Amino acid sequence: MSFSPLIQQLVTALRCLPGVGPKSAQRMAFHLLERDREGAFTLADALKVAAQEVEQCRMCCTLSESEICDICASPSRESSLLCIVESPMDVLAIEQTSGFAGVYYVLGGHLSPIDGVGPEDLGIDFLIDRVTSEQVKEVILATNPTVEGEATAHYIAERLKGCETRITRIAHGVPVGGELEYVDGGTLAHALAGRRQW
Amino acid sequence: MSFSPLIQQLVTALRCLPGVGPKSAQRMAFHLLERDREGAFTLADALKVAAQEVEQCRMCCTLSESEICDICASPSRESSLLCIVESPMDVLAIEQTSGFAGVYYVLGGHLSPIDGVGPEDLGIDFLIDRVTSEQVKEVILATNPTVEGEATAHYIAERLKGCETRITRIAHGVPVGGELEYVDGGTLAHALAGRRQW
Repeated sequence: MSFSPLIQQLVTALRCLPGVGPKSAQRMAFHLLERDREGAFTLADALKVAAQEVEQCRMCCTLSESEICDICASPSRESSLLCIVESPMDVLAIEQTSGFAGVYYVLGGHLSPIDGVGPEDLGIDFLIDRVTSEQVKEVILATNPTVEGEATAHYIAERLKGCETRITRIAHGVPVGGELEYVDGGTLAHALAGRRQW
Repeated sequence: MSFSPLIQQLVTALRCLPGVGPKSAQRMAFHLLERDREGAFTLADALKVAAQEVEQCRMCCTLSESEICDICASPSRESSLLCIVESPMDVLAIEQTSGFAGVYYVLGGHLSPIDGVGPEDLGIDFLIDRVTSEQVKEVILATNPTVEGEATAHYIAERLKGCETRITRIAHGVPVGGELEYVDGGTLAHALAGRRQW
């Protein structure tokens, strides 16, 4: 026996969520149908509206329902300080530190020739145009500290060579609150190489 | 900074899924919006249709979009063998063993006076009526092996006293494939007490 068709359809649809396997999808479907129909309707509406209305900001390519997102539109942000990240989640992570007053550019991924992702897919030409035409003083490369993230940062830095813009990369080193003993060798080597005057 | 309102609304709505905290909800929302709009629409439709159409089977109270579920409607099932379970998920678990040819009754929970769940909330009167009027030969109490499940089974067994129906409880014992060393004392005591002739 399997479920009745509509329940089966719901279980299958729930599998599109990241990290949700067959068993979790079953649990979610039954939870909603048995105990939270209201929540199911709310979720259905929220999904539909968000999937219809949310687009990319025309300036920074983050997700936003307005043409220009709140950060790009804010007059209190320093538009000459541009932080390049891979995804909208990274924007949120940096915003939560409250330590950055500049603006962002979201690549929407990293260079990955094996998956067919090239510079044109990340809008890098648009980014270079923006940096040269808008008198950006500093570009902070904040792509992920992975092989692909580093390669992407390297590529952008190469493309920006010759501009008068200052190009920086976020620091690699030991995470705050960690113990040296448990930090991997690569990170430790970076932390030593990037040591600063006390 | 927080998300734009529609994204925030979606993140909040995703929290209604069991086991989804704030961070997973964010990840799910961004995954759908960045990479799987199609999936978001499909999920929204599946949720809406299921929440509208799926009701309880009038015979066994499991979830089904038809008035009588497939199991109750099937002429090949033995209607004189009635298995009482707590939830529709339990029906599925038993069906997957392919070892049961009878029909089910889904209580939709267990007795829990502290949460205000009494016999009337579980439809126990309806169940007793069904057992007495339909010439059920055997009632298998397959509520969960928890304190509440045992109490519920006990209550139903008490109510059915005096009927000619045979009342049984699923066996408690060591799970197949486990090691005795790691089985808890309560289970082991049950396994010893319930030993069978070789």
